[in-house]
Amino acid sequence: MTSTWRSDLMAGAVVAVLLVPQSLAYAMLAGLPPQAGLYASLLPLLAYAVFGSSPVLGLGPAAVLALMITQALAGLPPGVTPEAGALVLAAEVGALLGLAALLRLDALSSLLSVPALRGFESGATLMIAAGQLPVLLGSTASGSTLPTLAQSALHGGWQPVSAAWGGVAIMLLMASRRGGRQLARLAPLALLVAAMAVSAFTPLAGGVAQVGALPALSLPLAWPLWDAALWRQLLPSAALIGLMTFVTSLAVSESLAQRRGEKLLPAAELRGLAAANMVAGVSGGMPVAGSFSRSILLHEAGARSRWALVFVAAFMALALLLLAGPLAHLPKPVLAATIVVAVLGGFTARHYVEAWRYARAEGLLMVAVTAAVLLWSVGAALAMGVVGSVALLIRRTAQPHVARVGRVPGTQHYRNVERYAVECQPDVVGLRIDESLVFTNARGLVDAVLERVREHRVLLGEPQRVLLLMGPVNHIDMSGLVALQELRAALAAEGIRLEFSEVKGPVLDRLRAVGWLERQDVSLYLSHHEGVQAGAHALRPSQADHDAPGQL
Amino acid sequence: MTSTWRSDLMAGAVVAVLLVPQSLAYAMLAGLPPQAGLYASLLPLLAYAVFGSSPVLGLGPAAVLALMITQALAGLPPGVTPEAGALVLAAEVGALLGLAALLRLDALSSLLSVPALRGFESGATLMIAAGQLPVLLGSTASGSTLPTLAQSALHGGWQPVSAAWGGVAIMLLMASRRGGRQLARLAPLALLVAAMAVSAFTPLAGGVAQVGALPALSLPLAWPLWDAALWRQLLPSAALIGLMTFVTSLAVSESLAQRRGEKLLPAAELRGLAAANMVAGVSGGMPVAGSFSRSILLHEAGARSRWALVFVAAFMALALLLLAGPLAHLPKPVLAATIVVAVLGGFTARHYVEAWRYARAEGLLMVAVTAAVLLWSVGAALAMGVVGSVALLIRRTAQPHVARVGRVPGTQHYRNVERYAVECQPDVVGLRIDESLVFTNARGLVDAVLERVREHRVLLGEPQRVLLLMGPVNHIDMSGLVALQELRAALAAEGIRLEFSEVKGPVLDRLRAVGWLERQDVSLYLSHHEGVQAGAHALRPSQADHDAPGQL
Repeated sequence: MTSTWRSDLMAGAVVAVLLVPQSLAYAMLAGLPPQAGLYASLLPLLAYAVFGSSPVLGLGPAAVLALMITQALAGLPPGVTPEAGALVLAAEVGALLGLAALLRLDALSSLLSVPALRGFESGATLMIAAGQLPVLLGSTASGSTLPTLAQSALHGGWQPVSAAWGGVAIMLLMASRRGGRQLARLAPLALLVAAMAVSAFTPLAGGVAQVGALPALSLPLAWPLWDAALWRQLLPSAALIGLMTFVTSLAVSESLAQRRGEKLLPAAELRGLAAANMVAGVSGGMPVAGSFSRSILLHEAGARSRWALVFVAAFMALALLLLAGPLAHLPKPVLAATIVVAVLGGFTARHYVEAWRYARAEGLLMVAVTAAVLLWSVGAALAMGVVGSVALLIRRTAQPHVARVGRVPGTQHYRNVERYAVECQPDVVGLRIDESLVFTNARGLVDAVLERVREHRVLLGEPQRVLLLMGPVNHIDMSGLVALQELRAALAAEGIRLEFSEVKGPVLDRLRAVGWLERQDVSLYLSHHEGVQAGAHALRPSQADHDAPGQL
Repeated sequence: MTSTWRSDLMAGAVVAVLLVPQSLAYAMLAGLPPQAGLYASLLPLLAYAVFGSSPVLGLGPAAVLALMITQALAGLPPGVTPEAGALVLAAEVGALLGLAALLRLDALSSLLSVPALRGFESGATLMIAAGQLPVLLGSTASGSTLPTLAQSALHGGWQPVSAAWGGVAIMLLMASRRGGRQLARLAPLALLVAAMAVSAFTPLAGGVAQVGALPALSLPLAWPLWDAALWRQLLPSAALIGLMTFVTSLAVSESLAQRRGEKLLPAAELRGLAAANMVAGVSGGMPVAGSFSRSILLHEAGARSRWALVFVAAFMALALLLLAGPLAHLPKPVLAATIVVAVLGGFTARHYVEAWRYARAEGLLMVAVTAAVLLWSVGAALAMGVVGSVALLIRRTAQPHVARVGRVPGTQHYRNVERYAVECQPDVVGLRIDESLVFTNARGLVDAVLERVREHRVLLGEPQRVLLLMGPVNHIDMSGLVALQELRAALAAEGIRLEFSEVKGPVLDRLRAVGWLERQDVSLYLSHHEGVQAGAHALRPSQADHDAPGQL
């Protein structure tokens, strides 16, 4: 056995210790029997090992997905069990991710901005913790949003014995966190084993809800239900779960790859996640994703290749064999305690403060997304996050900053006249366009420029040229091009020439391809300084070409 | 009477001559009785004159709106006449525009890019012309998309006499276009009067469909139907019609304001359009917008103030009194001919070629929107235009160009090493980020930069610093900020410092507000050249502040 194998074996064992309690707990959280979580931690890991790319992605059931699964399975038609629904969901998530891989849609993951993603994850964390409260207290209340949970809690009582079990479990887990990382990671499994033993051999767990016996242990390999109406019903949820799966898994595997100096291929990642979910759908599991805590653990425990995941799966099979009997006695409040402590450990209120201080609008979006998770639904929250992020992006590009620039005395640098003491010439209006010219701002361009020309006229007299410093213009789309044409016409009506300086290479390539500069008779300068100095001897495009054979 | 009044009176008369046939024709096109078009050209014009801002907006029924109205009224519940539906629609469009004015949503108009708008208008033009063919030919076929029209045409025959009337009318109108502008503008009204006379006093129009007698002429002032279900049903259509009304009216009034050296207030424009449509909804009209052809005409005929619109309305009232009787005899094919000639005059295939040559993707979007109008529905086409434009914008920002830059020998300018012969120093990697750092590209930033560092290492040796030239970065959102933090950490792991040069004022203000540069210990330089030269003596942010009291 080489040293790589030994490292992977050790890392696999360490991660399995964390994965056993998590897989049981997240299955319960998703409203599924515990074995669904265990099954989801076997074959899907092998599938990812074959098709994926990251050596340290801690694949398996995940807390946020579990919450999404609960909501997705809330409206199943009569006769379809949650287990059957979860299999269809997993298969559908896998199929969608596979389709996204085929169509090279990995860029879709960028639709979730940091505020949207953090707002969503924080909301899900709070909702998961709130949802486990009744289990901790031995109440029958349940609900996947705060209003439904509160309504249900009005009618349910609570059991002091359950609450005692839950309270003690939480205290032990919290205490273990003070004892260092090793202890904190071992604690959940140790607690489960201890709780099973106490519950089985003493009467202390009398009346407390217990997990119950697992069915005969054979991997239930079977096709998911082929029911077109059911697949259609679950499609929107599957799309959202697929998006979350990809975004959260990619975020963790990318950040670890950067730390490890490895190169990650998003497309391979998408393929691996697709395969894992498809396999989960035919082997009794539930949708799976990369977990942040388990991935970090794989990395820190020294995993070197995807063989580590194969060893995790082997240890999970072993655990399944050993735990099948004893699990019957595990009190549910203990499992709920492991969930609450695990998810709340990931909650950071600081994120809201940071976003709010840096950009009000993004902070508000983050709060709105969190509130939507708690009060409405995960689907609505995700949609709000995507639409809100895009709206903020559009709003930002919609208000271009058009600055009059002048020369910093004694240099060839040109800066905003409102922020610097600079020199301006009366015959030329130097303007810097601080934004790409695209449809969201094209309509306002002409007015913004004419406004600056008026300013110039009042302060410095009648100009002969407007020289646009185009360095910050990264793109000009069709709408921007039409706006430039209108600008040229509007300036020409006042007897003023339009000229450009410092046009970026890719932008210039486009303008040249359609002969725009020649047709519009717009002069070009390599640097703004040259343009200002050129005075009446403006270079025509053909001459500029000659002087600068390379492109600007 | 002052000379302004005289100019406005003359311009009003000229525009009324064009508006009479257009208002009759567009009412027919919208599936409404002819008087709806005439009523829509009376009080709504006065309302705009009071609340609007442009002196040359040719308000009234419009061809594209007429097509949208037909589709909106296709699914009216039994018992609701198209006339009653059109009044509800107009009132609702007015209410929505008023709401948009209150909420200052005038920026929403920027959601329609040039390719989307042109694709939509071209599609509507073709569809309107195709829809008039059966009327021209005396067939009973009808439909507001090509498939429904074709299906309906399969079952209908045609009438040689109607076709003769239609053919002659088209030829006369086309011929008038060769006779100069004056003639072309007078031709439609002259043709209508001549056709009414021939039809009334000769037997030539026997069997040809005719407009029919108008009801007793009294302005039907009444509230629109207060039926909540009906208002809800028409709401999506009203929103789309409102958007088109605002966008097309604003486009024409803005471009004329620029030509006339006037300043246009989009908010006032929105208010005027809202008032006009609300009034149309209570005075027997139909939704109204600014027409391109009539606005140009008002401008060229010398209109100086919104009194011109008041005179247009007065002439329309006169026309209504004179035409009420004779209109009964007007053959419909003649009216259809005026529509076909008017709308096809505005169709320019060149727009597709231009868009395609300048940017494939925008050309494709334009074709797709046109096809959607013809084959699907105006609503789907508009939605496709908006979503497609936003998707292209996102795609553009998603692939940032990160260029290694070097010094143009003998200058202080830095340019892309791949396009210029420039000098680079081995200890510093100069990179220009050609895009704002926002969520759509944040995830790719670290990889893109590390890739360039690897290139540098191979070509020039181990660097000590990465100096990012931030001039083209117009915004950094929260996701971009997080990415920069990750970049700093990833570089630090390789023993490389991160530094910025030429950070824009507004961007720097934001970073300073949260103390980011200090916390992350990132140095700042006023110019890239300074940064490269600084070598080991990097300025710390506090020092930079001191050296440059103004902001960068």
